[in-house]
Amino acid sequence: MAPSDPAERPSAERLRLDRFGVAEYLAEVWPESTARMNAETIEILTPGRARMRIPIETGYLRPGGTVSGPTMMGLADNVAYVLVLGHLGPAALAVTTHLSIDFLRRPDGVELLADARLVKLGRSLAVMTIDLSTVATSGAEPDGAKPVAVVSTTYSLSLVSGGGGGGPGC
Amino acid sequence: MAPSDPAERPSAERLRLDRFGVAEYLAEVWPESTARMNAETIEILTPGRARMRIPIETGYLRPGGTVSGPTMMGLADNVAYVLVLGHLGPAALAVTTHLSIDFLRRPDGVELLADARLVKLGRSLAVMTIDLSTVATSGAEPDGAKPVAVVSTTYSLSLVSGGGGGGPGC
Amino acid sequence: MAPSDPAERPSAERLRLDRFGVAEYLAEVWPESTARMNAETIEILTPGRARMRIPIETGYLRPGGTVSGPTMMGLADNVAYVLVLGHLGPAALAVTTHLSIDFLRRPDGVELLADARLVKLGRSLAVMTIDLSTVATSGAEPDGAKPVAVVSTTYSLSLVSGGGGGGPGC
Amino acid sequence: MAPSDPAERPSAERLRLDRFGVAEYLAEVWPESTARMNAETIEILTPGRARMRIPIETGYLRPGGTVSGPTMMGLADNVAYVLVLGHLGPAALAVTTHLSIDFLRRPDGVELLADARLVKLGRSLAVMTIDLSTVATSGAEPDGAKPVAVVSTTYSLSLVSGGGGGGPGC
Repeated sequence: MAPSDPAERPSAERLRLDRFGVAEYLAEVWPESTARMNAETIEILTPGRARMRIPIETGYLRPGGTVSGPTMMGLADNVAYVLVLGHLGPAALAVTTHLSIDFLRRPDGVELLADARLVKLGRSLAVMTIDLSTVATSGAEPDGAKPVAVVSTTYSLSLVSGGGGGGPGC
Repeated sequence: MAPSDPAERPSAERLRLDRFGVAEYLAEVWPESTARMNAETIEILTPGRARMRIPIETGYLRPGGTVSGPTMMGLADNVAYVLVLGHLGPAALAVTTHLSIDFLRRPDGVELLADARLVKLGRSLAVMTIDLSTVATSGAEPDGAKPVAVVSTTYSLSLVSGGGGGGPGC
Repeated sequence: MAPSDPAERPSAERLRLDRFGVAEYLAEVWPESTARMNAETIEILTPGRARMRIPIETGYLRPGGTVSGPTMMGLADNVAYVLVLGHLGPAALAVTTHLSIDFLRRPDGVELLADARLVKLGRSLAVMTIDLSTVATSGAEPDGAKPVAVVSTTYSLSLVSGGGGGGPGC
Repeated sequence: MAPSDPAERPSAERLRLDRFGVAEYLAEVWPESTARMNAETIEILTPGRARMRIPIETGYLRPGGTVSGPTMMGLADNVAYVLVLGHLGPAALAVTTHLSIDFLRRPDGVELLADARLVKLGRSLAVMTIDLSTVATSGAEPDGAKPVAVVSTTYSLSLVSGGGGGGPGC
């Protein structure tokens, strides 16, 4: 994807980086993050939307066999950062300023999905809502009616003139 | 609509009261509320979903011509209460315990809409997410991509054996 | 109080307007607000702190005799705005971007108090936490251990070069 | 500490387990948790209050040298769970239903502290507010005016007749 003119104001209707571009950028400026955020876990990135999908592994579990709260909060923050990067492009400094999560039911399944929606992309703030859900079969579509958690999060944005920088709160 | 068996546990897939039933119940137990919650302002009430729509009137405005924050929070709380009542039926005590709102852009238009989604209906808690939006023409569909505010709210529930009671936080 | 040098960056340790200055400024630029925000209802305004106190009147009540949710949210937003104005001074454009409230117990008493604490004053965001409480006797100190609601709220800030403007979300 | 009569209703004014009791209970029912929650990290547990303190170690860091968001959210959830356990005692099933965090400034220092306040202990819900702060010197008191994050969280409670169970969202 050809990057759009950096002089144009970022818009929720237009990506500056697609999911491969985001993965490549992260691999360059923040190699440690690629275990979580890569072209495989970033399943969808389109204007205004992103989905990430991660396997539910033993390492994530807490007693009772469910995914831990911080794992869910971390994935929500990751998908929000991917969504922001996709719309702002590399020259962005973006930090989490707020995250609110409602835990609804015990996660159960083989994959944890995070569906993010960009509800505002302003000059200094981006606001996103995220549904977290699980699926019993790898690759399946989530049941929209039964999220395991719902999240809203805010990123504070600065467009920096040169170089990388930034990173999510997580 | 015939009320479902009150012995059955409430479910997000089944209404106990439709929008006319909710309006009638409120007119009986809380007459003062009918100026805001009635069969006209409650536009949609189906399993898991509710929409309210109110005119944006001068009385609601603050300097700059926009709807005030408390008006938006009040409408969000109202639609949440309608959604809870529809699923729990009259024998419910339900109070707001949490409300979180992100203000996204200045409301502008002739009607304010609140689209609520029931994401959890448990024994003691109901959780809902709500999009607030405006339309320029009375009766128009909202532009889902541009909410003026997003809300999540929690109601604490008790099923009471006899009589009415309850009421929203607002 | 002599206003501090407007070229200095605003700080949580220094007021630009005391409570009389805030009340005067509001009376000038937003006369309708003075019924709620005035030198009487703004009881305390010091660096990092503000308290507002309003009588609990019939008009505020909902069935059951308690203060309504929007009244509580409105007061929380008002005290936050007073706190922001006090630290930023008149040349500030400040709008509510987020408000989160937990309703804890039924308000009961003759006055509703809002104690706000400025936990961050950045260049583009101010974050405040607020305890709402009630007292049975006019002028009494609140019982810190028993708030009726706790709130956190965020204001988005812009320092404008000339003139007034701004206003809270409420 | 002698446990209070389990037939009495739990109260925010009375502990059922002190910090050693909580640590012991957790070691028994959830051994994996003791790396984070133990009699050393739980610094204070008194009626209505708890403080935890953890070293800021390399493992917690993300690029830029600061503590990660999930680490902060996890510590906030841990201290909330300790506070709930202390007041409810062992026969409690308590799960996180909501957590809201505002990130205020970059954490910097050698220890991360979480100061929790129990603002409501009801029959079905406990609500807590938490200040996260850092100190440059091990064992130092936090500067109350400069938290790195503020949190509010809600636990859903059930008193179970026999046996352990429960666990935080994290």
